[in-house]
Amino acid sequence: MEISKDGRVTLPVEVGIDKEVHEMINKWGADAIRNSDGTELSKELMEMAVKVYTTYLTARNDQKWARNHMDQLQMQYLMSKHNIAVSEVLEIDLLDGFFRRQFDIDKKHDCNRYWEVIDRTTGKVVDNDVWKFNKEKGTVVIKDAHKWHRYTVSFLAYQIWDTTHMYNHLTNNWTTPPHMGYDVFHKETRDHILSYLGNWLKENPSVDVVRFTTFFYHFTIAYNDKAKEKYVDWFGYSASVSPEAIDEFERVYGYKLRAEDFIDEGYYNSPFRVPSKSFLDWMDFAQKFVTENAKKCVDLCHEYGKEAMMFLGDNWIGTEPYGNYFKNIGLDSVVGSVGSGATLRMISDIPHVKYTEGRFLPYFFPDTFHEGGNPTKEAVENWVQARRAILRNPVDRMGYGGYLSLALKFPDFVDKVAEITEEFREIYNKIKGTKPYTPKFKVAILNAWGKLRSWQTNMVAHALWYKKIYSYVGVIECLSGMPVDVEFLSFEDIKCKGIASDIGVIINAGDAGTAWSGGTYWIDDEITGKIREWVYNGGGFIGIGEPTAYLHQGRHFQLSDVLGVDREIGFTLSYTRHDKALEDKHFILEDNEKHINFGEGMSDVYSVGDNTTILSMDRGDINLSVNEFGSGRAVYISGLPYTPENVRILFRAIYWSASKEKDIYNWYTSNSNTECAAYLDMGNIAVINNSDAEQKTTLYINTNNYMDINLKPYEIRWLTV
Amino acid sequence: MEISKDGRVTLPVEVGIDKEVHEMINKWGADAIRNSDGTELSKELMEMAVKVYTTYLTARNDQKWARNHMDQLQMQYLMSKHNIAVSEVLEIDLLDGFFRRQFDIDKKHDCNRYWEVIDRTTGKVVDNDVWKFNKEKGTVVIKDAHKWHRYTVSFLAYQIWDTTHMYNHLTNNWTTPPHMGYDVFHKETRDHILSYLGNWLKENPSVDVVRFTTFFYHFTIAYNDKAKEKYVDWFGYSASVSPEAIDEFERVYGYKLRAEDFIDEGYYNSPFRVPSKSFLDWMDFAQKFVTENAKKCVDLCHEYGKEAMMFLGDNWIGTEPYGNYFKNIGLDSVVGSVGSGATLRMISDIPHVKYTEGRFLPYFFPDTFHEGGNPTKEAVENWVQARRAILRNPVDRMGYGGYLSLALKFPDFVDKVAEITEEFREIYNKIKGTKPYTPKFKVAILNAWGKLRSWQTNMVAHALWYKKIYSYVGVIECLSGMPVDVEFLSFEDIKCKGIASDIGVIINAGDAGTAWSGGTYWIDDEITGKIREWVYNGGGFIGIGEPTAYLHQGRHFQLSDVLGVDREIGFTLSYTRHDKALEDKHFILEDNEKHINFGEGMSDVYSVGDNTTILSMDRGDINLSVNEFGSGRAVYISGLPYTPENVRILFRAIYWSASKEKDIYNWYTSNSNTECAAYLDMGNIAVINNSDAEQKTTLYINTNNYMDINLKPYEIRWLTV
Repeated sequence: MEISKDGRVTLPVEVGIDKEVHEMINKWGADAIRNSDGTELSKELMEMAVKVYTTYLTARNDQKWARNHMDQLQMQYLMSKHNIAVSEVLEIDLLDGFFRRQFDIDKKHDCNRYWEVIDRTTGKVVDNDVWKFNKEKGTVVIKDAHKWHRYTVSFLAYQIWDTTHMYNHLTNNWTTPPHMGYDVFHKETRDHILSYLGNWLKENPSVDVVRFTTFFYHFTIAYNDKAKEKYVDWFGYSASVSPEAIDEFERVYGYKLRAEDFIDEGYYNSPFRVPSKSFLDWMDFAQKFVTENAKKCVDLCHEYGKEAMMFLGDNWIGTEPYGNYFKNIGLDSVVGSVGSGATLRMISDIPHVKYTEGRFLPYFFPDTFHEGGNPTKEAVENWVQARRAILRNPVDRMGYGGYLSLALKFPDFVDKVAEITEEFREIYNKIKGTKPYTPKFKVAILNAWGKLRSWQTNMVAHALWYKKIYSYVGVIECLSGMPVDVEFLSFEDIKCKGIASDIGVIINAGDAGTAWSGGTYWIDDEITGKIREWVYNGGGFIGIGEPTAYLHQGRHFQLSDVLGVDREIGFTLSYTRHDKALEDKHFILEDNEKHINFGEGMSDVYSVGDNTTILSMDRGDINLSVNEFGSGRAVYISGLPYTPENVRILFRAIYWSASKEKDIYNWYTSNSNTECAAYLDMGNIAVINNSDAEQKTTLYINTNNYMDINLKPYEIRWLTV
Repeated sequence: MEISKDGRVTLPVEVGIDKEVHEMINKWGADAIRNSDGTELSKELMEMAVKVYTTYLTARNDQKWARNHMDQLQMQYLMSKHNIAVSEVLEIDLLDGFFRRQFDIDKKHDCNRYWEVIDRTTGKVVDNDVWKFNKEKGTVVIKDAHKWHRYTVSFLAYQIWDTTHMYNHLTNNWTTPPHMGYDVFHKETRDHILSYLGNWLKENPSVDVVRFTTFFYHFTIAYNDKAKEKYVDWFGYSASVSPEAIDEFERVYGYKLRAEDFIDEGYYNSPFRVPSKSFLDWMDFAQKFVTENAKKCVDLCHEYGKEAMMFLGDNWIGTEPYGNYFKNIGLDSVVGSVGSGATLRMISDIPHVKYTEGRFLPYFFPDTFHEGGNPTKEAVENWVQARRAILRNPVDRMGYGGYLSLALKFPDFVDKVAEITEEFREIYNKIKGTKPYTPKFKVAILNAWGKLRSWQTNMVAHALWYKKIYSYVGVIECLSGMPVDVEFLSFEDIKCKGIASDIGVIINAGDAGTAWSGGTYWIDDEITGKIREWVYNGGGFIGIGEPTAYLHQGRHFQLSDVLGVDREIGFTLSYTRHDKALEDKHFILEDNEKHINFGEGMSDVYSVGDNTTILSMDRGDINLSVNEFGSGRAVYISGLPYTPENVRILFRAIYWSASKEKDIYNWYTSNSNTECAAYLDMGNIAVINNSDAEQKTTLYINTNNYMDINLKPYEIRWLTV
């Protein structure tokens, strides 16, 4: 067969539509095919002259093993509901509110050792001799409860239904028996996983790329008693546990973990929590273990002459691509779902792999591909939002997922994807691995996680919209396609290494108390001291939402002196406000023509100090302001959802706070709906229109050289210099 | 002269318009006249056959004394700005940002004893030997500052301009020399105050009522360096201090107060702060002292056959009418400004006086009485809002303030006030001191202040609108005219005495951490235990805004089990929400026809537990919900500004949470714009229309007996039974 285009595209395929698959390979220029969970690859498909990816489910491909080793299934730490003691004897039904087809309470291990009953009114652990586990009923009975206190039980349960399988099963009304995932921590299972993989590799010679979906531990998902999602944390480690691993941890780290180290008051170490030392230690332990054993799988693939690709999701816990141990796995590539510019960069910036691949939206599923659906619109919007980020740092390949037969019913969609794949390849070839122009200073996102959660700040479930986060996720979304170099910095980085000289602007964005804002780190005088000194000497600081927030000694924003603002939390109402917005147009708003969208914003922010200049207010609350601190500058923004106008506001705020206003017109477009990327090593300049309307823009090569350009809706225009 | 009506009205008068004063006395049925700060009473006016009130400024009537005793002027505790140490020597200009015509730094007393320099980065007090006060420059120099830390100085200053005089002076462009207030704490001054009053009483035989405006210490006001208000706390004690009083406090209470006990991180013990023990002790000390000496003034008045009336405001600190010592003063009456129903009740509920008087709005000042102004509208709205509260418990007299000559230019206004005063007298005479119908159970407002701050919850400056409080002030405003008996309860009351058997519903309303919500009281298991038990056994609990809030052990609302809701503060986003609002009409919303106004509301409130019934949601956040807990019931409301509809929602929420739905139709009106008050002892029923439109309503005597009534705009209709 003939591939007319140069590839870089992966096609999801199904058996029984070989002719159509052939056509699509040509139409989209696909040079690889893949199956999905629930689809198979036929011999005919595998023999087509393209690369073949096959999904490999490391911890559940052998369900016979699972059924025969029920005591080696994966576990999860769970917390019961809060129960009020209305009498001195309190019986707590552990699985009340959980999905009983997902979990089976651990009756094998010593509950006194691994469980905890906690009086949540006082926070005290209840003595083991005061409570008893009733194995038959699945309850814990506290015999001497303090009346009107509330109690919880932290306990371990086997996962008797694999999370992804359960999700797909319930979502797609599958009727196959539930898959169960086994735990690689048990040596017997570990050996089996490797030997099973070895056999599989031997028996599947036509497979070119083993697409691990994924390795060992799933991110945290628990369903409720109505078979609906109860808890989901894409970053969660609650399903990476077992008594055996906890014992091993104690041996290595020298201290015993408590159930509470996992339960965390019921917050389960959400990434919004400033991580505790014990949780960081557990992550370190799990990451070492996971990467070591993932490496063994990858090595096996290589032995059989196959590539090893990891899907960034599902059982990805412990593999964090921006973590300390990822490189040891030795993967050839990572593939992930692209829901936005930030998620694209989350994939394309991954180090230590030969290539990355983005799976674009929409998924070929009936939720979009039904009569009256508009998959073409969704594809274009997804592509255009990701394209800005691709221009900064492209993934090496793109692809789609789901049922191809569904997509084929929408010829419009098929044609549009042909255009998109062609545009993708054009970009890739014009860039040729070179770096587009960025200013000399870097922009750092500062939070409690730093590099580990690069492009993953303020996220709950992967790339999903939440009311409480979109005004912060907008920050990394804006940055993902912006001509600046971005670094993710933790408070510990600043404590250990100070602030590197190439950083020009620090951004701190998040709600008070969260890991993204920083919580207690802001009453660490080493951190506030270093940042104050750095700003005073010329640094730029941008705070979004509740930056530097920790109520302490009369201030909610601990760097209110730097920011020029603080937030009213009810104690300073007696201070009369005299805030007024600036009437002139400030540098930051020069390109802004309409009402600014601050998303959820932040109520009750007011000026402190004498220098604050307010650029935007609403009902007495500051939404946007600037302040000078020594030779440095700070900007406060109440919220920054992703919009083309907000990209521009943030971009200008970055240049202003870095005191580099004069440099902004190097490779700049006047119209907020347009952006440019200048590949000076290649002599290629891309100018893009991110909007669905025609746009007129002025492309600035520098302050003195510029040209007017008209762009069609969503157009990318290439110029040469 | 002839007084055609039966009085109960006080007229503000001026010299030079005797004829008009005569006319107005007849027209409004005034039986008393008064002067204001800035107006005088002529001999002719005083000889009119009506009662004469004269304003008496206890602590500043003798400015000669003030000038000759500058070291006995009143003082104020102040905190400097926050200053960042950019080098090891930090010089802090104490009065920077303050109005230098208001304050003079205390150079007389030992600054090492009464001042504090605090490192606000760490919260630690700086040793005395590290800083020095430069008397000439008015600065403090810290010689060994920790670089990049922020520092404040807490210091004492003399008030060289009396607060009220300064306010009137700057507001009305007066050009007289500033008044200074002297401090009654100094024996010499105290003796002088009394002898001066004695002389004055002797020399003013025509005065019937000495209107003390007020006694000794002004509530806290500090102006800024632009001569504008910087800080105002109608409840503030910062201007009740002196080194001599602090020393005396130490002698009596056995411990030395710190400057920080007054400065309170710069919050100056705002009533929004859960009060510290030391502040409560100081209030107790000041109240004892103030009431003892106020009594001496009152006794003197009585000796001279005059009545003693206190103005509730200005120098009222220490006299709290709902405090433990107020009754000792022996006042005949209290007069206060009526800005709303709640402020009316704040006056009319005052115990231990012979009568109360309300000063209604508008003030006869040019801000309202100018060409194009509409004082009539303001008078009617003020009257109608207060009338609901008058029907519950009337003040005994009403009056107006300001320049009568201004009012006379608006004949419309003069006529309308004649109607209002007549309506007031009619109400008063129909009630004759009897109590209108209320249900058998009481409603308690629970906060850290309890009885002391009756009808004063969530207030900053007296009756002024603030964005951050109106959604809470609405609660007491709704209650002020509602047919229920209201009690103000503190957490200490519950700890000491439990919950009285006549209380049917407890309301907790306020922002997290404030004294109104309760802050740390909510992790006191004695309090949560007693309330849980009480609700479980049938009590009703209504939470508004952030009730029972203190982030602890996985819950922000500590009684989330009772309320059925909690607030997301960023840590539980991983819990999937399945909240849906009830489609049927709940009892609480039966009278509601339009969109509910929750004011500022409260973002991110979600259900916890399985029983929560959601009555109103907006963008995924709960605004109104109900829950059952044992035999008891709870209601959550996100905010409750004062509107006729919200009066009804709260009223129904009270009956529902008390499980008394069936009793609600005793003396009930169907239309939310109308209310009724049933004086069963008199056989008189008042039905009022609070709106500016005609209203049709059904008056329920009980469930089975009712009648339709049509009411004209703002009408009050009297029926007899």
